[in-house]
Amino acid sequence: MTTPGRRPGDSGTRAAILDAAKEAFGASGYAATSVRGVARTAGVDPSLVLHFFGSKDSLFEAALELPMDPAVLVQALLASPHDALGETIVRTFLGVWDATPGQGPMLAMLRGAVSHEDSADKLRELLLRLILRPLAIGAAAGDPDQRAALLASQVLGLALVRYVLRVEPVASAPADELAPLLGPTLQRYLTGPLP
Amino acid sequence: MTTPGRRPGDSGTRAAILDAAKEAFGASGYAATSVRGVARTAGVDPSLVLHFFGSKDSLFEAALELPMDPAVLVQALLASPHDALGETIVRTFLGVWDATPGQGPMLAMLRGAVSHEDSADKLRELLLRLILRPLAIGAAAGDPDQRAALLASQVLGLALVRYVLRVEPVASAPADELAPLLGPTLQRYLTGPLP
Repeated sequence: MTTPGRRPGDSGTRAAILDAAKEAFGASGYAATSVRGVARTAGVDPSLVLHFFGSKDSLFEAALELPMDPAVLVQALLASPHDALGETIVRTFLGVWDATPGQGPMLAMLRGAVSHEDSADKLRELLLRLILRPLAIGAAAGDPDQRAALLASQVLGLALVRYVLRVEPVASAPADELAPLLGPTLQRYLTGPLP
Repeated sequence: MTTPGRRPGDSGTRAAILDAAKEAFGASGYAATSVRGVARTAGVDPSLVLHFFGSKDSLFEAALELPMDPAVLVQALLASPHDALGETIVRTFLGVWDATPGQGPMLAMLRGAVSHEDSADKLRELLLRLILRPLAIGAAAGDPDQRAALLASQVLGLALVRYVLRVEPVASAPADELAPLLGPTLQRYLTGPLP
């Protein structure tokens, strides 16, 4: 007996779509990849892609195999006190990156972004559109694009100095030491009045 | 008649040393390059390298063919009002980068730094040791290494978001708009009390 709305062989179909998505996002970047194209490569109807993954954004996230769901991350951050979000963001990002070998997909995109436009595109999509922009919309009164871009400049600059350039004392400092140093910057970009 | 202390053929010798230095810094990075090794490659005595370039730092700077001398840049910044240095640094860096095709050697190092340790080494040497650390020593009471690392995180993050990822509205904003947005961050890292 099969579950209503599901068919036998679902897991194989889902895997075929995910493989096609990884290939397409990897080769063409986020913007140039379409649900229709992924469906064609996987040999299925586009409606099946949406049945399994819901949207292009969710398909993209699944293809990235992130250590956590960006929407869950954003919800968790917005549920914490908004006047301490700056420090919470520092602790959260460093918590994920410090615990992930190679610092995970976002840093892989950062390494790729300097030479490949499709990596830059994926990084913009993941960090800006799925994390920082929703955060700015949830925490502040306006200018979500400007706030997200400013947040990205400090978050990625921190990642660059800590993990890529390994500049001391930032490279070896525990997150608890960096949070009060960088937190006020992120707090101002996120909720402060901007000129 | 020759100038005292100089010999006929000086310009050829200087050029040979500079070529050897570019090759050595490019292939091995700053740390692994020695004045002695450059002299050997150029077929001259090490004392001649110091006669022409004064020090390994100056030789490194000459090999980079920078749009400006880092020491002159630091002096000029420290001669401006210290309580506005944050904004002045934003304007100065963007002024140089916006005006330089490809944003010049520092951004080339940034692009190289994510995959090549020798580029990372050169970027640390140029930005941290020749510019930001002397700036922190000249403008603040302590913690020059920590201040320089924090400054680097925001300066390089800005460069990354503006020139590499091209995130709007930061990518297209004039320097006059970005200076009051990012200036307070740099000011606090440079002269503010740090926890």
